[in-house]
Amino acid sequence: MIITRMSHNECIDLISKARIARLACSSGDQPYVVPVYYSYADGHAYSFTMPGQKLNWMRRNPRVCLQVDEATDSGWRSVVATGRFEELPDRIGHKRERDRAWQLLSQHANWWEPGALRPEPQTLADHSPHVFYRLLIEEVSGRAARKDT
Amino acid sequence: MIITRMSHNECIDLISKARIARLACSSGDQPYVVPVYYSYADGHAYSFTMPGQKLNWMRRNPRVCLQVDEATDSGWRSVVATGRFEELPDRIGHKRERDRAWQLLSQHANWWEPGALRPEPQTLADHSPHVFYRLLIEEVSGRAARKDT
Repeated sequence: MIITRMSHNECIDLISKARIARLACSSGDQPYVVPVYYSYADGHAYSFTMPGQKLNWMRRNPRVCLQVDEATDSGWRSVVATGRFEELPDRIGHKRERDRAWQLLSQHANWWEPGALRPEPQTLADHSPHVFYRLLIEEVSGRAARKDT
Repeated sequence: MIITRMSHNECIDLISKARIARLACSSGDQPYVVPVYYSYADGHAYSFTMPGQKLNWMRRNPRVCLQVDEATDSGWRSVVATGRFEELPDRIGHKRERDRAWQLLSQHANWWEPGALRPEPQTLADHSPHVFYRLLIEEVSGRAARKDT
């Protein structure tokens, strides 16, 4: 197995293509990681969540880490990005970002699959408690592995 | 999509079956998450790593979070576990745990694939700088999603 570093552009390209990431946040010395669905545009990963531990923790400490990977024909690629949580509250002044988040996320039929739903039947009604947010991507690094043939 | 909570046993069962997890650690207020290969036995996830950021951070702050998921016929299952890093140093007194880690990890042909290698060609020779460790699994929670048919 040969491991190479991915360029900045290759990292952003993988983040742009992927829909599922693992999002890590932390509270005190305890890290926490969950799968999230997202859509990338203009240096930000847009997503949404139900109220809960992840949201509470990111509101208190906006520093996050996002990990995205894919299997390739001959191995795998993985990108780790550090970033910063930014809530997109339902208030005047954030309509444009919320609409953008909704537009990006709704392009995919299965956008609601992982991470966003609590363990009860839910519908994403107009007055649902879902919170839109985005993650400013600050630093990226990536590794690609391919079989040594 | 119907989301249900997984029982403790279901969570441990999924952790036992899986080989790839996402491991989050943190330093100060910065979380970090990477894919790792592991093997589970007796309440611990056994793994190894090259020296680097993940190892440095876990040595300073042993609190970690492990996330494992799988696609199912009708949806997905995801488990999050909090735990504690324990290094298995190459010293008298740890031979049994190191041998166990090696035995568990070497049962799979592709155990070296993700996370363990730095971006240079490497071989796992007797005197390689790989560090064996295990994660004591403390608390688990899981969610299963299936299509609402």
